[in-house]
Amino acid sequence: MTDTTSTELDQILDAATEAAPILSAAAPATRAGWLRVAADALDAHRDELVPLAIKESHLPEARLTGEVGRTSGQLRMFADALESGWLSEYILDSADPEQTPPRPDLRRELVGLGPVLVFGASNFPFAFSVCGGDTASALAAGCPVVAKAHPGHPETSRRTAQVAAAAMQAAGAPAGILQLIEGFEVGTDALKDRRIRAGGFTGSEGAGTALHRIAATRPDPIPFYGELGSTNPAFVLPGALADRPDELISGYVGSMSLGVGQFCTSPGILLLPAGHGLSEKLAQATAEVGAAQMLNDRVYSGYAEGAASRRENGAVQVLTAGTESDEQASPTLLATTVPEFLGQREELMSECFGPLSIIVEYADEQELLKLAAEFGGQLTCTVQGSDADTELAGKLLPLLSERAGRVIWNAWPTGVAVSWAMQHGGPFPATVGSIHTSVGITAARRFQRPVCYQDVPQALLPEALRDGNPLNLLRTVDGELARH
Amino acid sequence: MTDTTSTELDQILDAATEAAPILSAAAPATRAGWLRVAADALDAHRDELVPLAIKESHLPEARLTGEVGRTSGQLRMFADALESGWLSEYILDSADPEQTPPRPDLRRELVGLGPVLVFGASNFPFAFSVCGGDTASALAAGCPVVAKAHPGHPETSRRTAQVAAAAMQAAGAPAGILQLIEGFEVGTDALKDRRIRAGGFTGSEGAGTALHRIAATRPDPIPFYGELGSTNPAFVLPGALADRPDELISGYVGSMSLGVGQFCTSPGILLLPAGHGLSEKLAQATAEVGAAQMLNDRVYSGYAEGAASRRENGAVQVLTAGTESDEQASPTLLATTVPEFLGQREELMSECFGPLSIIVEYADEQELLKLAAEFGGQLTCTVQGSDADTELAGKLLPLLSERAGRVIWNAWPTGVAVSWAMQHGGPFPATVGSIHTSVGITAARRFQRPVCYQDVPQALLPEALRDGNPLNLLRTVDGELARH
Repeated sequence: MTDTTSTELDQILDAATEAAPILSAAAPATRAGWLRVAADALDAHRDELVPLAIKESHLPEARLTGEVGRTSGQLRMFADALESGWLSEYILDSADPEQTPPRPDLRRELVGLGPVLVFGASNFPFAFSVCGGDTASALAAGCPVVAKAHPGHPETSRRTAQVAAAAMQAAGAPAGILQLIEGFEVGTDALKDRRIRAGGFTGSEGAGTALHRIAATRPDPIPFYGELGSTNPAFVLPGALADRPDELISGYVGSMSLGVGQFCTSPGILLLPAGHGLSEKLAQATAEVGAAQMLNDRVYSGYAEGAASRRENGAVQVLTAGTESDEQASPTLLATTVPEFLGQREELMSECFGPLSIIVEYADEQELLKLAAEFGGQLTCTVQGSDADTELAGKLLPLLSERAGRVIWNAWPTGVAVSWAMQHGGPFPATVGSIHTSVGITAARRFQRPVCYQDVPQALLPEALRDGNPLNLLRTVDGELARH
Repeated sequence: MTDTTSTELDQILDAATEAAPILSAAAPATRAGWLRVAADALDAHRDELVPLAIKESHLPEARLTGEVGRTSGQLRMFADALESGWLSEYILDSADPEQTPPRPDLRRELVGLGPVLVFGASNFPFAFSVCGGDTASALAAGCPVVAKAHPGHPETSRRTAQVAAAAMQAAGAPAGILQLIEGFEVGTDALKDRRIRAGGFTGSEGAGTALHRIAATRPDPIPFYGELGSTNPAFVLPGALADRPDELISGYVGSMSLGVGQFCTSPGILLLPAGHGLSEKLAQATAEVGAAQMLNDRVYSGYAEGAASRRENGAVQVLTAGTESDEQASPTLLATTVPEFLGQREELMSECFGPLSIIVEYADEQELLKLAAEFGGQLTCTVQGSDADTELAGKLLPLLSERAGRVIWNAWPTGVAVSWAMQHGGPFPATVGSIHTSVGITAARRFQRPVCYQDVPQALLPEALRDGNPLNLLRTVDGELARH
């Protein structure tokens, strides 16, 4: 690991600054083309990139191979939304001299904010790193990206940046479109630099809120979007329990232990009706999951400490005592009741990043709803229900949608589909930047700024805003969506 | 002026918290109905409200009468966008089991963030105060509003809040939908309170950045949107100068002195080609504008100090020395060259809120473009050009759209049409929250948060997201906009 020097950082930020107006002014189809060549290049280099990531992250090959596909697919999704016009949100209002005050001709589009600093995550070497969602959405928005490599996978980061940047530059993109920096201090130095206009981050609540504070208290505050953490409570309703206990056991244990529990959406809390009778089977299924290596020593030691402390918490009973040794962990399953859980909320309601989950038994419907209303911001809330649960679910879902970005029915929260409608975000502490998402088509909005042209002659307007809609883009004209 | 007590504030925030889920869950048409009755009530009470505002703000009757219409029109504009579905940005993705990973059924909408704190502005007792753009867009987003009255117009604020809240409650809205608080400390106390989920502000850079810092460094950071200040440079190109010198003089002097210069968009800097020959006529036209009373003693004393300091700045020549006395001001016009201006940039490039403007002579095209690239974030940049200026304008406009929210051709920046495409915002220091606008249809986005429902049964989905589009709303389905 070689830290970027301050001289190198300065050159990198200058190159990003030079690239910014070129990217922002490029036609939607041109930018889409750059995203597509980057996607193709990642796919073409998959067999080179995946082994690097295996070595650095200890994640399995199938998962990482899928992750490259997810990453290239994400770039193409943004390309589609650029080409159709959806992403730039063109809004045109005709002049109306009869209004008070008279309305001029107004034409508005979203342009790039300028250079964006992206902090890669440890747990997704591709999909939330150098060419992940933050980068894809920033490039789509017309912003050059300076990606800070996660120290857990430096070589993967370097090659990803080289492959994607070379492809985009070969297709005519400016040199500063995507650049890599390495090192802890250089990351915060970049975040403080006037040339950086926004930041994106996926990681811990501590690091995310600290970086957010730097961005927000600069002499010129900039937006900073942090996807932090979540306990992702899953609510099993009585009907579902009666219908399919075995499926619930396998689904839950599979989801909480997937990827050694190292997902933002790992279900850290399971609500079960009192007297559910699944404890033994749950404990057994959990014990059957073997130990596996965690991402890196920092993640491992943080998890080992959190798991040990929770196992010793007097409010819980240990159903399965997992193991932690040699950077490997096997899952831990704990159990408690709603009153005991709420009595220890500070520890038990906070995320323990890794394969640990807590079963909380609720006495009745009232207790379930009361507990639901106690949760802070979440990335996801999951409900397992059946037709018999419709009435209770009707009371529960509104409480969940008030505190979560995504509400899931009869599935498990791990697995975040890359799709237009996906929401990967939620109220604090799930994110800083609760009005946004880091996956899904509107992720680009985080890096876009509206510009409105008033009475500007045709020849001086961006082509996308001209009369007759020469680029055939989706536009809102006088309050109606149309392609005219 | 009676400050809201801490007990009263507590009750107000509880009422807002209670109202939040009701507002957010109300059907778009229901919320639109509340906005419309508030608009109707303001119009119906215009003859009572306008005299209160005249007394408190010293603004003329015609202006304030127009401002009430602008305020009610703004509420109706958001109602329209709610009813069509545009505002809630419904995005639906069909399940696709063939994808890797398989894509579930995803349906996403924007919901309200929760109670919003709105700080009213001094210079628009209606349009940027209790029922102004921040409030209208927050209500449209489904958020209860706690409005902090500006101390410059407390009685106008009280009656506006009473009239609008009573009308909405009579139409079935919850009691906490719109409430008023008064007092400096109670405003910052509210901003620190966990029950407040976002803040909106229009006012000075100092106050706005201080409040932003409070919001961003709370234990649970919340978004805070401040529309701060701008010098709104206007660039006169040689062709325009040759074609219509007299029109430029009257338009500019009219715009910079309008409302005693107390507009965020007042043109504080005018760029003219060297040798323009207009100095005498500009000085004369400015001198002919009489003195008028400013909004309040704080605005007046801030302006008097800023104007005196600028008149004494060695880099400028005084074309018209305005007067300041007894809270009245007549306009001041200064002149300088680009090098002198840049030599004193700290003072001369900062906003002087009131009727003062600086003419900056540029030697040639290069100097004009160089200066344009030196400006910081602006609400507006204006170009006065003719057909003969097209080549120069083609180089200038991209520089302006990089730093301004609105680029105006052959008009003057004062007058912000309430219209879907309007952009009232810009890079810092024009605003904190540069990706947003405080006027225009997307102002509501500041207070909306996406929620995605995954595989949720029809009966448990919000009606707006159900199969068959029962509410006939605009929705994006599988990447295509449609009403299906």
